[in-house]
Amino acid sequence: MGMLKGFTVPKSPFGQAALTPPPPWHYAGDAVGVEFWTDPDATAATLPTGLMQDPKSNGHAVMMFLDWQFTAQDDEHLEPARYQYREAFVLVDAMYRDVPVMWCPYIYVDNDAALARGWTQGFPKKMGSIFQTRSFAASGPAAAPLAAGSRFGASLSAHGQRLAEACVTLDRPVENGMALLSRPTVLLRYFPRLAAGYQDKPAVNELAMSMTDHLTVAGAWIGTGELNFGDANGEELRALAPNRIESGFRYSLSYSVSDLKILEDRSS
Amino acid sequence: MGMLKGFTVPKSPFGQAALTPPPPWHYAGDAVGVEFWTDPDATAATLPTGLMQDPKSNGHAVMMFLDWQFTAQDDEHLEPARYQYREAFVLVDAMYRDVPVMWCPYIYVDNDAALARGWTQGFPKKMGSIFQTRSFAASGPAAAPLAAGSRFGASLSAHGQRLAEACVTLDRPVENGMALLSRPTVLLRYFPRLAAGYQDKPAVNELAMSMTDHLTVAGAWIGTGELNFGDANGEELRALAPNRIESGFRYSLSYSVSDLKILEDRSS
Amino acid sequence: MGMLKGFTVPKSPFGQAALTPPPPWHYAGDAVGVEFWTDPDATAATLPTGLMQDPKSNGHAVMMFLDWQFTAQDDEHLEPARYQYREAFVLVDAMYRDVPVMWCPYIYVDNDAALARGWTQGFPKKMGSIFQTRSFAASGPAAAPLAAGSRFGASLSAHGQRLAEACVTLDRPVENGMALLSRPTVLLRYFPRLAAGYQDKPAVNELAMSMTDHLTVAGAWIGTGELNFGDANGEELRALAPNRIESGFRYSLSYSVSDLKILEDRSS
Amino acid sequence: MGMLKGFTVPKSPFGQAALTPPPPWHYAGDAVGVEFWTDPDATAATLPTGLMQDPKSNGHAVMMFLDWQFTAQDDEHLEPARYQYREAFVLVDAMYRDVPVMWCPYIYVDNDAALARGWTQGFPKKMGSIFQTRSFAASGPAAAPLAAGSRFGASLSAHGQRLAEACVTLDRPVENGMALLSRPTVLLRYFPRLAAGYQDKPAVNELAMSMTDHLTVAGAWIGTGELNFGDANGEELRALAPNRIESGFRYSLSYSVSDLKILEDRSS
Repeated sequence: MGMLKGFTVPKSPFGQAALTPPPPWHYAGDAVGVEFWTDPDATAATLPTGLMQDPKSNGHAVMMFLDWQFTAQDDEHLEPARYQYREAFVLVDAMYRDVPVMWCPYIYVDNDAALARGWTQGFPKKMGSIFQTRSFAASGPAAAPLAAGSRFGASLSAHGQRLAEACVTLDRPVENGMALLSRPTVLLRYFPRLAAGYQDKPAVNELAMSMTDHLTVAGAWIGTGELNFGDANGEELRALAPNRIESGFRYSLSYSVSDLKILEDRSS
Repeated sequence: MGMLKGFTVPKSPFGQAALTPPPPWHYAGDAVGVEFWTDPDATAATLPTGLMQDPKSNGHAVMMFLDWQFTAQDDEHLEPARYQYREAFVLVDAMYRDVPVMWCPYIYVDNDAALARGWTQGFPKKMGSIFQTRSFAASGPAAAPLAAGSRFGASLSAHGQRLAEACVTLDRPVENGMALLSRPTVLLRYFPRLAAGYQDKPAVNELAMSMTDHLTVAGAWIGTGELNFGDANGEELRALAPNRIESGFRYSLSYSVSDLKILEDRSS
Repeated sequence: MGMLKGFTVPKSPFGQAALTPPPPWHYAGDAVGVEFWTDPDATAATLPTGLMQDPKSNGHAVMMFLDWQFTAQDDEHLEPARYQYREAFVLVDAMYRDVPVMWCPYIYVDNDAALARGWTQGFPKKMGSIFQTRSFAASGPAAAPLAAGSRFGASLSAHGQRLAEACVTLDRPVENGMALLSRPTVLLRYFPRLAAGYQDKPAVNELAMSMTDHLTVAGAWIGTGELNFGDANGEELRALAPNRIESGFRYSLSYSVSDLKILEDRSS
Repeated sequence: MGMLKGFTVPKSPFGQAALTPPPPWHYAGDAVGVEFWTDPDATAATLPTGLMQDPKSNGHAVMMFLDWQFTAQDDEHLEPARYQYREAFVLVDAMYRDVPVMWCPYIYVDNDAALARGWTQGFPKKMGSIFQTRSFAASGPAAAPLAAGSRFGASLSAHGQRLAEACVTLDRPVENGMALLSRPTVLLRYFPRLAAGYQDKPAVNELAMSMTDHLTVAGAWIGTGELNFGDANGEELRALAPNRIESGFRYSLSYSVSDLKILEDRSS
């Protein structure tokens, strides 16, 4: 007894039942996204203690839709029913001390392993239904090639309600796709207590910075974008609805995760 | 900044976006279950530090399938698309010091709010697809009445693989349905660290005891049962496959949750 | 070769692979519904050749949400993962010759066996996600008892978009629940041709009347209702949005199906 | 009244509610497949009247898994939540008169528009859950490049039960990918009657040959394969379990559909 294994619950005799295999975690995917400006008060209202508004880019945000493939050390990418997934999230500009960063207030995935990994990083993942137009190698009216004028739709729904819809029209390739990912992402690792009298004293309350190894961007294109947010009980994404669209983009990316940087620990 | 609200992530300006509303949490549901005996070494191997085998009931376990309705303080039961859910779990007999308890090694739900509540209690919830035969008030061949000889099927799948199948045949009503729930449930609240060098030093590692208010059982019947566990990558439920079936049962139940008792804190 | 069995496709050597077992089909379920009035031109526009508006109830309609259990001859109700399902549909008043009937323009289910049965009857089923508040026997804040003032929510979504939301508040029991089902339902059995030049000459185009055996209603309550329809590409339900709500209701029902009455055959 | 529009049900005032837009239908996708040999009696037992065994390739079959993007005339590929889908099917060798063909006994999709199109062509589609390993442009451990030694997993489940699992290991590119698609596919268009006394006299019972325009294959690779079929109530795919694997392959393809060739009409 007591020799349970596994990086997350459920801890089990052989460590095979855990929601996710242990890191390092490897990802490859396609991203469709829209860069936009929203009400600066709305982005500011989502920031946790420790982050400040970025005075140079108040209200600047990005909405991303991702088709992901995941693997760890055991060829998990060969079990796509269990480990392939889709994701959508919004990032808003912020400052951590004097470092320009992005903060992730809302994120959705369609897979429980991804949800569990996200929680341990500080991504506040909920379950959603996410789709993006894909690009296929065999040409034809349904293929959506990577070419000027090609369009990519994307949507996010949760519990049968549409939360976001986007459409991106490609204009030109981006020389340095990595430039689209210039700021680090700051996250909130948070795990509450349920014991009476302690429900406002979280067991974990840490400001963290996402760390990625071997980040690679391929096939990046930029163009124009459309983005709309819908309303739903139990959601607050709508408060970040775009005032102005900056651009739309699409690229493939890959990276690995084996670490996390804890910036501040406010656990009680 | 810093005034984010919500019992769980995502913390948000109005506290509406959190995965679950704050406690008290109220539940009503129907349970189909099978009481069985499995390999005592297999149940012992699932126990966390702090629990011991129960020498009087080594290998005794219960598999439960539940259709749940949930509400908190805002009529959440009127939004069934977001808050109604289904659940399946296994409990095994154990001892906490000199108290006979049940331990929950594996549990599955089809709803993210339920998953989040579960994690905060120590239920190691993963996503699954759960179904049970229901009893309807209008009689006929499909109605499955609460009557001797009536049968109730149930199943659990995860990621397209069948993990458990059960069938219960009702024999007789149970005078005191509460007797079916005589032991408290012990759980493991667990939240890992991802920072390199700390991945085996969980931020939260607490042995907890589930606390329920106003527990009510109605319409309890007992009879015979069948139960089979299937194999799947990423799961270890199969190790608890039944050697012998003790009984099958079905009842309705309700309770509320507003507290949790922490038994031991091994957080590092 | 050529001895394939099964009531529907896929036809197979043992007839076990067909989407649905053959009739008789037995159903038991719970219904939450709203009776309402909409634009008479909108209901008239949904009627097929052979049906006329009912001059006494132009624009009268009912929206129904159902939790169904199904069985045929092989205890299918013991396999709820495959055969239990949920449904939502709208019925509008019409006349077939001098017979007052109801016509079903739109209907959604979350199960392919139900979809296949529906098509053979003339129900134009699409896939959707349907939920209703349930009533549980163990009392408590989440139980939604059958009692005055009790409320039942319901919703329909398709492809991540909310198409309908309802809420019913019970006021009083209905003595004769069968009175809620006084008109027969008329349907359109329709199967197109795909061969070039014949795509507007359907292989099957029959006006049919639904026939039910052993129709039973239990636990009927009537009260007030709310109903809202949402907009979505690929849907026209919104055109039937309520102008005025007549009532809300909830009941359990059961019936069997083994026949269909063909009223008119316009197959080409 | 009577001016309803739409290629399939539901017929509606504006023709927007139909399960699928009218042809021409355009497809682009990625295929992972395994070519194999099974019991010749098992393949023969799936053949409808009008098809004979192919004496040169008794028991030869192909299992395919496809990720599909669909569009018709209204940019449906920009609504991936509604129109993107996944598919799995098995084809077996057969003879139609003196023409070598393939026959499709079983096929699964995860989308109702695809199911409806399939039925009108004669594909006996049921709902399933299908996944395949994808190849992403940004390199890394999760990217599954098109390269010798790269592996692609695939699976099919229905109602929570695993029906098929495959794994393909790429060995070498195929010069002429079209050679992988050399035989036409024969299908059974079938729509039953429900009226008592006519339930064995289908309204539509036509042997048909699939017709594709602008068929394109890109990026074809061939190699080795693994394939296993699981058992499930309500399915007969297992009877076609492989005796010997011939090869595994992966390619991208696209084509359009605007016609169907009816070979024989046995409608009653």
